[in-house]
Amino acid sequence: MAFKTRERLGSFGYRTRRGSLDAISESNNFHESNGRKWCSTGTSELLPGQSVGLEIDHIIETRKTPFNDVLLVKSKTFKETLILNGIPHLTKTDGFVPFEMATHVPLLCHPDPRHILIVGGMDGSGLTAEILKHPSVESIHHCEEDSEMVELVKKTFRVSGFDHDNPKYKYFSMNAKDFLRNKDGQYDVIITDRSLTTHEADPGIFGVSYFELIKDALKRNGIAVTLSWGIWIELRPPDKILKENIRWIRNLFPSVNYYAVSAPSFPTGQGGYIIASKEENKDFKTPLRNLSESEMKPWKLRYYNPEVHFAAFALPQFAKQQLFPPKPQIVDETRRLDLPRQLCLSTSC
Amino acid sequence: MAFKTRERLGSFGYRTRRGSLDAISESNNFHESNGRKWCSTGTSELLPGQSVGLEIDHIIETRKTPFNDVLLVKSKTFKETLILNGIPHLTKTDGFVPFEMATHVPLLCHPDPRHILIVGGMDGSGLTAEILKHPSVESIHHCEEDSEMVELVKKTFRVSGFDHDNPKYKYFSMNAKDFLRNKDGQYDVIITDRSLTTHEADPGIFGVSYFELIKDALKRNGIAVTLSWGIWIELRPPDKILKENIRWIRNLFPSVNYYAVSAPSFPTGQGGYIIASKEENKDFKTPLRNLSESEMKPWKLRYYNPEVHFAAFALPQFAKQQLFPPKPQIVDETRRLDLPRQLCLSTSC
Repeated sequence: MAFKTRERLGSFGYRTRRGSLDAISESNNFHESNGRKWCSTGTSELLPGQSVGLEIDHIIETRKTPFNDVLLVKSKTFKETLILNGIPHLTKTDGFVPFEMATHVPLLCHPDPRHILIVGGMDGSGLTAEILKHPSVESIHHCEEDSEMVELVKKTFRVSGFDHDNPKYKYFSMNAKDFLRNKDGQYDVIITDRSLTTHEADPGIFGVSYFELIKDALKRNGIAVTLSWGIWIELRPPDKILKENIRWIRNLFPSVNYYAVSAPSFPTGQGGYIIASKEENKDFKTPLRNLSESEMKPWKLRYYNPEVHFAAFALPQFAKQQLFPPKPQIVDETRRLDLPRQLCLSTSC
Repeated sequence: MAFKTRERLGSFGYRTRRGSLDAISESNNFHESNGRKWCSTGTSELLPGQSVGLEIDHIIETRKTPFNDVLLVKSKTFKETLILNGIPHLTKTDGFVPFEMATHVPLLCHPDPRHILIVGGMDGSGLTAEILKHPSVESIHHCEEDSEMVELVKKTFRVSGFDHDNPKYKYFSMNAKDFLRNKDGQYDVIITDRSLTTHEADPGIFGVSYFELIKDALKRNGIAVTLSWGIWIELRPPDKILKENIRWIRNLFPSVNYYAVSAPSFPTGQGGYIIASKEENKDFKTPLRNLSESEMKPWKLRYYNPEVHFAAFALPQFAKQQLFPPKPQIVDETRRLDLPRQLCLSTSC
């Protein structure tokens, strides 16, 4: 059940600074159990029948922005936790996984990453802090339409030591597709991170048009990374969502692969990224620069290392067979018109 | 909350053939949400603040055996699901992960696996079916004390095509430590699988005495595999449970490593195995026999393949640093007396 009464949750000690309890999405399910308060999340249509339950200390903030139901809670295990539209997006405890794996994998596969674009990525600080560890980087553009959410997240999640006024970093509160137009050949790496949303009005990024714009905005040896689903949703018949996403991208880019990450607050404990390059036969598994232990130490890495980079591309047998069948030669145009809305991974497109 | 009233769960359509609702552990938390029935599990002391929620179709059976609270449910996503003492142990949907990864990793690292012992492993059929794919195997002994649980699980989970009367398979309803005594040098591979339990009376297998027995029961090039925790519990201060487990085993075996598996019904979506050999400098990452695609096909593998085998040993940076510090030279005897009960992974020891 969603929040029904103030009494029910009185002992959470919430501090709703703005908005109301109605701002909480129906998909955020609260219940009490043995005197403990739980928030069960992730029960969207994509992941039916399973949820991740977090024990809640208190609610930090609830807000309904024009784009998202934002719920910021302090959870027992994961500390500060951002739940957008009923899906946990970011926690203080395991947020380093997506930050490190969305950035170091593509940047270490690129010969000279200078100009980076982040689409989505909440307040951008977590990804930007990792990107700035690469000395070649000259500029980071960050496009996320929901500036209200960005401000909320910034207050709670800003990575220590990162300053949003950093001269290499620039934020754009714009629709991602509008932003990408006329950016031909501008970026070395484009990272499409969540905010995952299921908004009715959202056309979804997993349509060809978004990735055509991404492709155009990349330099000739550019690399695109897109947060996608974990492999386990592929066990859910009859839809093969991840397979379809990869198939669309393989129709546009000559080199496409998928790598998995493990994070306990993710639905099913696992997520993944689709990585694509405009170059033929690009080997994403083997980084162009292998970080040594002494190089990694000042970067304070907690997840990424060269072995993890390589291993992340190893897919369980069922996933390998489903996700990477022989490359199709003909684009099936009819599929383009049939994109489920809930596949959108960003509020900005 | 645990089951409180029959009314509350009337619509689950349960069929309690024996025992009573009291048989359900307090740690099995049921609640209704938006008209759906959920069972939230895994909220033990080891994994505080997080639970895995499964939407329940109906309860198949509840039973309190002398060793376990057994709960068999039909869940929406994972089909038939076995919950022992509040922890999901096995589902029809992702059970292939532990079955394949507990067996093929050690058996393909052993030059000639003939005699195998399973400790725990529920009804044994899932592991045995995988082990029997290796033509060298001559005998499989299965030791699990809770014969009542074994019979219950057998009815619901027996792997299609496997016959418990198979002449290579033999079941022993015995305490594992009693069973292991006087088995010196008898086994090529010993697999300690769950049933995970937190019984008050249980001394836990993660003490030296259990692994001393395992070591003695192995042949000179024998391999032991033990289901353990996922890496994420190591983020929970102050205990470093997995690190301690590995440290104990490294004091006994010259070669020890850890490999991770991803399965959505596992708490945190991830689990792992400690693998040990009596041989010096044993390389577990590289299987002695690399299965080709054509060899794998008749085995109908869904998770295991040679890349996954290698990749499973790649640990995120924080886990690598925590779990495998330089090998200690002196066994700290005082630690042996201080084993948390809840670390036991088998009902049989």
